[in-house]
Amino acid sequence: MSETKKTTIVLFSGDYDKAMAAYIIANGAAAYDHEVTIFHTFWGLNALRKDEPIAVKKGFMEKMFGKMMPRGADKMGLSKMNFAGMGPKMIKDVMKKHNAIPLPQLIEMAQEQDIKLVACTMTMDLLGLQEKELLDNIEYAGVAAYLADAEDGNVNLFI
Amino acid sequence: MSETKKTTIVLFSGDYDKAMAAYIIANGAAAYDHEVTIFHTFWGLNALRKDEPIAVKKGFMEKMFGKMMPRGADKMGLSKMNFAGMGPKMIKDVMKKHNAIPLPQLIEMAQEQDIKLVACTMTMDLLGLQEKELLDNIEYAGVAAYLADAEDGNVNLFI
Amino acid sequence: MSETKKTTIVLFSGDYDKAMAAYIIANGAAAYDHEVTIFHTFWGLNALRKDEPIAVKKGFMEKMFGKMMPRGADKMGLSKMNFAGMGPKMIKDVMKKHNAIPLPQLIEMAQEQDIKLVACTMTMDLLGLQEKELLDNIEYAGVAAYLADAEDGNVNLFI
Repeated sequence: MSETKKTTIVLFSGDYDKAMAAYIIANGAAAYDHEVTIFHTFWGLNALRKDEPIAVKKGFMEKMFGKMMPRGADKMGLSKMNFAGMGPKMIKDVMKKHNAIPLPQLIEMAQEQDIKLVACTMTMDLLGLQEKELLDNIEYAGVAAYLADAEDGNVNLFI
Repeated sequence: MSETKKTTIVLFSGDYDKAMAAYIIANGAAAYDHEVTIFHTFWGLNALRKDEPIAVKKGFMEKMFGKMMPRGADKMGLSKMNFAGMGPKMIKDVMKKHNAIPLPQLIEMAQEQDIKLVACTMTMDLLGLQEKELLDNIEYAGVAAYLADAEDGNVNLFI
Repeated sequence: MSETKKTTIVLFSGDYDKAMAAYIIANGAAAYDHEVTIFHTFWGLNALRKDEPIAVKKGFMEKMFGKMMPRGADKMGLSKMNFAGMGPKMIKDVMKKHNAIPLPQLIEMAQEQDIKLVACTMTMDLLGLQEKELLDNIEYAGVAAYLADAEDGNVNLFI
């Protein structure tokens, strides 16, 4: 068959290293002509946050979540050896030394490669995140849209 | 093809938020007429524990595991921002406010939708969990049964 | 079709329990005649480290990572209830009692069953791991090789 292959990733994790793995696989799959979707849910939404504070009206709980969660990909911690924030700096230092691409640039590259970046509206609601706090040119959808993509996927991962 | 689509999830994690994601995807897939299996292994078994203590004979180690692990879905912690138990309360408060369905009800809904809930017998053994400590109307199986389902699955996830 | 079924696992996690789950599924799938690949990336590479120190030249950061990360499967911690190293001992004790196979033996078994064990060269570079520090008879590859396996996979998991 000459059908386009499909890759879908649920990015649940808010860890820098896990998000890197997700975006490296996604960009690789797009380079091999897969149709790729990354569905960001729960803490994975933080990868899509703009890095500057955005003025939005929020309730108390939503404000607290907003303050405690990392504002954008560059501020996320590591899943292992985070050492109160030292770990991400170490990883970023070795990444620079080895010319590895940092997460914010991996996300830009994904957008340039037309990878569909989706924010899960149900969990945005729970965590009090609003559209204008997230990157431009992303899509908003729920679990039904994810399943419609994944049921024809060749590679489906939950990260 | 008019074949039934299949979704399988290995629920390894004992985190409230990850179990929620698993059950939301599972219930969604069942609503779209997928045949759905959730295979609970390791800490994911805690989602199937009854919330009251059950009198069973156990060795010392098994008793310790039994005491230390959360007794049922409602007592599980968060994968991020758990804050010694404050996090789950916060999440449950915002969930109530936004009319999101709590995990125990998501599990009930899964049973009503005939999602096959399986407890991994090998890890039950390791963690000293016995059948009468777990919810009624679930199945007991090992990795072979999981693979038999997954090898024909359209969406297979490890959470 | 009488085609060989395929299972691929990305082992990202450096946790003893998650690596056990990965190797149990992999060995199960190989027993059912699947072609199986485990692609070790990030902390999952630690499962492939030899347990003795190997003399290699490294920069400062690479030395630090090398010292801080567990040297081989037997030294990995748990994803839950690690209790500063007590948890793995507890798990290994109950495993012995129940005749469950410890992780280093699960890895040996995987090699005997011709499961393809791959180390991700990009993350080896980042974490400063060199080929002679890892087990013999494994393969070295990048995300392109992983995707080539996974796009025809029946069961693809990220652990």
